[in-house]
Amino acid sequence: MVRPHPAIAPIAVLVGRWSGRGHGEYPTIEGFDYDETVEFSHVGKPFLVYRQTTTDPGDGRPLHEELGYWRLARPNWVEIVVAQPTGIVEVSEGEFDGSSFRLRSKAVQRATSAKEVTVIERDLNIDGDVLRYSLRMAAVGHPLARHLSAELVRVG
Amino acid sequence: MVRPHPAIAPIAVLVGRWSGRGHGEYPTIEGFDYDETVEFSHVGKPFLVYRQTTTDPGDGRPLHEELGYWRLARPNWVEIVVAQPTGIVEVSEGEFDGSSFRLRSKAVQRATSAKEVTVIERDLNIDGDVLRYSLRMAAVGHPLARHLSAELVRVG
Repeated sequence: MVRPHPAIAPIAVLVGRWSGRGHGEYPTIEGFDYDETVEFSHVGKPFLVYRQTTTDPGDGRPLHEELGYWRLARPNWVEIVVAQPTGIVEVSEGEFDGSSFRLRSKAVQRATSAKEVTVIERDLNIDGDVLRYSLRMAAVGHPLARHLSAELVRVG
Repeated sequence: MVRPHPAIAPIAVLVGRWSGRGHGEYPTIEGFDYDETVEFSHVGKPFLVYRQTTTDPGDGRPLHEELGYWRLARPNWVEIVVAQPTGIVEVSEGEFDGSSFRLRSKAVQRATSAKEVTVIERDLNIDGDVLRYSLRMAAVGHPLARHLSAELVRVG
């Protein structure tokens, strides 16, 4: 088993699989629940590999997913790069205090056919084997608004 | 086994694992060879999941990797979103003629601590069970220059 690269040791607490239930909402849509699995892994290099998938709690069909990398620019400053199959890419950065991340998008870009997303804010907290997060976004002409929140537990 | 979503049927030829040898170069670095595996998969939704990893042919240590999604905006027009652990995100778009992709970045963004990359061009060709690609980029003050080329064969 390769050990995490020293440059990401402070955030190696994320490594593993996390699973649980979330709730989504936005001014333009009906609220909805989702089942989610988040996985952080590493290959011994100075970044974490991030993959998130959600499914419908009723019939299990796949909903959203996203992929990316998390890295530390310095011990208390996180940079993440994320690609979303909706045609969105995101660079977000922010503080990490040992248990909480407060990330805000530095850049959001989109493919020509994708819906407009202009700002993404992610708050994430690790409390033992519990991972909680919330996500706000500004999209399709709306100002920053609550979009997602979930509570996951470590399952691997 | 879920069938590919009709919206990506034209590019479903990519689905599978491809492996082989590549060569890298750039005005700022020594040329190098690499072993590469590219995997395209899908979950029945209108996008392909893309993951690429490379390793050193000598000692097998991980080199580059990237993650993202490929989608079709229309039958002959591809949009890809890619995240790279070097702190780079990319939206590239271009023509697909049934066997060849010619993609050029519409946007490249980077984390604050990442090196500057401004343009990425990817040519990719599928010829039966052979996938060939080349990648050019403009980075760290240099104009568009050859960076990567590889020939992979379908292994799964």
